[in-house]
Amino acid sequence: MKRSTHDGPYDELRIDGRRLIDRIEALGEVGAIEGPDGERGCSRLALTDDDRAGRDLTLAWMSDLGLIVEIDQIGNVFATRPGTDPALAPVMTGSHIDTVRTGGRFDGNLGVLAGLEVIETLIQHDVPTRRGITVAFFTDEEGARFPPDMLGSLVFVGGMAVESALDVRAVDDDARLGDELMRIGYAGARPVPAAAFPHAFVELHIEQGPILEDAGITIGVVEGVQGISWTELTITGQSAHAGTTPMRLRRDPLYVAARITTGVRDIAADLAGNQVATVGRTDVHPNLVNVVPASVAMTVDLRNTDEQVLREAERRFDTLLGDVTADEGVTVDRRTLARFEPVEFDSRMIDLVEATALRLGHSTNRMPSGAGHDAQMLARVCPTSMIFTPSVNGLSHNIAEFTEASDIEAGANVLLHVVLDRANS
Amino acid sequence: MKRSTHDGPYDELRIDGRRLIDRIEALGEVGAIEGPDGERGCSRLALTDDDRAGRDLTLAWMSDLGLIVEIDQIGNVFATRPGTDPALAPVMTGSHIDTVRTGGRFDGNLGVLAGLEVIETLIQHDVPTRRGITVAFFTDEEGARFPPDMLGSLVFVGGMAVESALDVRAVDDDARLGDELMRIGYAGARPVPAAAFPHAFVELHIEQGPILEDAGITIGVVEGVQGISWTELTITGQSAHAGTTPMRLRRDPLYVAARITTGVRDIAADLAGNQVATVGRTDVHPNLVNVVPASVAMTVDLRNTDEQVLREAERRFDTLLGDVTADEGVTVDRRTLARFEPVEFDSRMIDLVEATALRLGHSTNRMPSGAGHDAQMLARVCPTSMIFTPSVNGLSHNIAEFTEASDIEAGANVLLHVVLDRANS
Repeated sequence: MKRSTHDGPYDELRIDGRRLIDRIEALGEVGAIEGPDGERGCSRLALTDDDRAGRDLTLAWMSDLGLIVEIDQIGNVFATRPGTDPALAPVMTGSHIDTVRTGGRFDGNLGVLAGLEVIETLIQHDVPTRRGITVAFFTDEEGARFPPDMLGSLVFVGGMAVESALDVRAVDDDARLGDELMRIGYAGARPVPAAAFPHAFVELHIEQGPILEDAGITIGVVEGVQGISWTELTITGQSAHAGTTPMRLRRDPLYVAARITTGVRDIAADLAGNQVATVGRTDVHPNLVNVVPASVAMTVDLRNTDEQVLREAERRFDTLLGDVTADEGVTVDRRTLARFEPVEFDSRMIDLVEATALRLGHSTNRMPSGAGHDAQMLARVCPTSMIFTPSVNGLSHNIAEFTEASDIEAGANVLLHVVLDRANS
Repeated sequence: MKRSTHDGPYDELRIDGRRLIDRIEALGEVGAIEGPDGERGCSRLALTDDDRAGRDLTLAWMSDLGLIVEIDQIGNVFATRPGTDPALAPVMTGSHIDTVRTGGRFDGNLGVLAGLEVIETLIQHDVPTRRGITVAFFTDEEGARFPPDMLGSLVFVGGMAVESALDVRAVDDDARLGDELMRIGYAGARPVPAAAFPHAFVELHIEQGPILEDAGITIGVVEGVQGISWTELTITGQSAHAGTTPMRLRRDPLYVAARITTGVRDIAADLAGNQVATVGRTDVHPNLVNVVPASVAMTVDLRNTDEQVLREAERRFDTLLGDVTADEGVTVDRRTLARFEPVEFDSRMIDLVEATALRLGHSTNRMPSGAGHDAQMLARVCPTSMIFTPSVNGLSHNIAEFTEASDIEAGANVLLHVVLDRANS
């Protein structure tokens, strides 16, 4: 791979920022939700009717551009503009269009629609490429409805058997993933894992954190992704009357859940660095003011860029769990919802993103990703990197998620020239 | 009031234990729920269709006995057997037939059906009484659907305006109490507060705690009721991505809820004695594994028999709440769902219960009630006491709630002779 710092005759090529933002806004209207202060968010959980509507709209845009559209067995969608040499593997870009329950309009959507915008720009300016260019969106990246997250790209690269993936049950209504995929009409024919992998993969995404904005930087050059450890706990105690049961006789699962919630915060504080720990979900049964609960289901999310430190966090969590359940005399069932080691991206792809951003006149910052992304799955099978754009107030997975138009345009132009470089290599 | 130790010609009168238990089982089939180990519980939340069905069945039994049935404006039901002197105020017994969401078949129902059994026994044996005898069931004693608890008896005695009570909203579906009362056909005509109050009130109830069983005692002589302080908190933080938001920048309402949950346990431990503290309800929004929550709603239930200590518990809770919300930078809205001072029952009524139980050959134990009961409302307007029977394993508000048939029979016979004594006074 040569280190490109220019694309010869196409150095001055730029995407159409207005067209890209119009598409982001149009897609954001599908499953639109509004916040108390007029924030415009999005709720498009994977494989719901709203997800189908979002997929249909995106597919219509892909078809309008004359791209070759394929859908694989787990519902990942690929739209390809062929290259001049059909024997060469295409360059791939893309992301996801599913959202969390109360999400924003940029997370995932930006990467897919910017990929589409890159291809439309090349078509519009009659720019041929040696390799084909594929824009993809992957099924169930969020994992908010069907754990684990990044499920579609994980199956694409062969990290999870399609049969297992199709049997995953929804956390909310227990629906089967395969049935929902069939129901919304996105159970495709292209086999997984893919028969051939891309020449390279690059994903544009919002940062979803406060680092770029704090530092006044336009482009994040992503060197890798934090490791993720998700655990679901079901704690069973003894339901009892809140007035008549002496404290010493209680076996209260919500008290145990509370000690775990404060305990994992303490673990993150002790380990410091970039260790994060989150309890995001707590379901109490029967959930009444005057009843000591019978059971609590909860999740614990631990992340770190360093696998050794992440393992230490997990060990301390195990100890905490053993201590607090024994103290209160409750029982606990645990299930690993997701476990991904930290990922390091391809050094030459990282260099290419950085050099391209600098050539286009943008400030850059090398950084890890705090969130999981489809790119970390693609990194298992081809040279991969990511481009981050700033998130206002660091917000994401939130209806107030926002990225400035100028930053979106900057990120998409970096994506254009990285893709162009790789597609002519 | 004279201290009775016998009822003259009716000393040997006894209720029919089989008939009482048959009615308890029949009423328990309305809204029946079953536990994993075959436990037979009951779910009959106030003013639901199941509550209506339970009321209809109980009313049919009352009518079958030829009692005069009246329904008041808040849906309390009164069935009276007239006395020989219509100028005298009747003696009242009773309890409630609504349950918590996963409740048992004895809580409340025992007191109502034992009252009915007392009257049927008097009818069957042609025993006249000077005063009428009324068996009542009061609306929404549990407060599980419409806070506060003991709402019906509170309105009956004039402690809450009927207009306010009818406007209470359900915690689950936001239904208006008055609308639900109308819907199930129990919005009666008898005015509240009542125009005249009973001569005396006595309520038979299961203990709902482990004390009698532990001590091997059959009859609890209830001297009073713990004070209750219920607070609902709505904690609002900042929803954010669980992977990308550094710990130091979080404003996590679920972490705050957890500190409150462990904090109130600490308060109960520090105050010791009979102080209890319970967090029974926690609702998280948006409740997803990878999202720092935006908001949490929760309840805190504090109880003590000593008003001064209960106030100290409330003061410490206020301090805790201030500290943890300030530490995390979240905001909190608080609402008092219920606040009742401890209640002391009438000393002569207490003596009567004790003497009657001893005369019938039962072991007795003077004790406070850890739970709230309709009797504490009646205690505001007439001499009142309660009779407790043991709860197996101390369980209540639980599908495994159970009381032995022999204890039920013992309690109902004590009720019979206490009522008979007061009805001839």
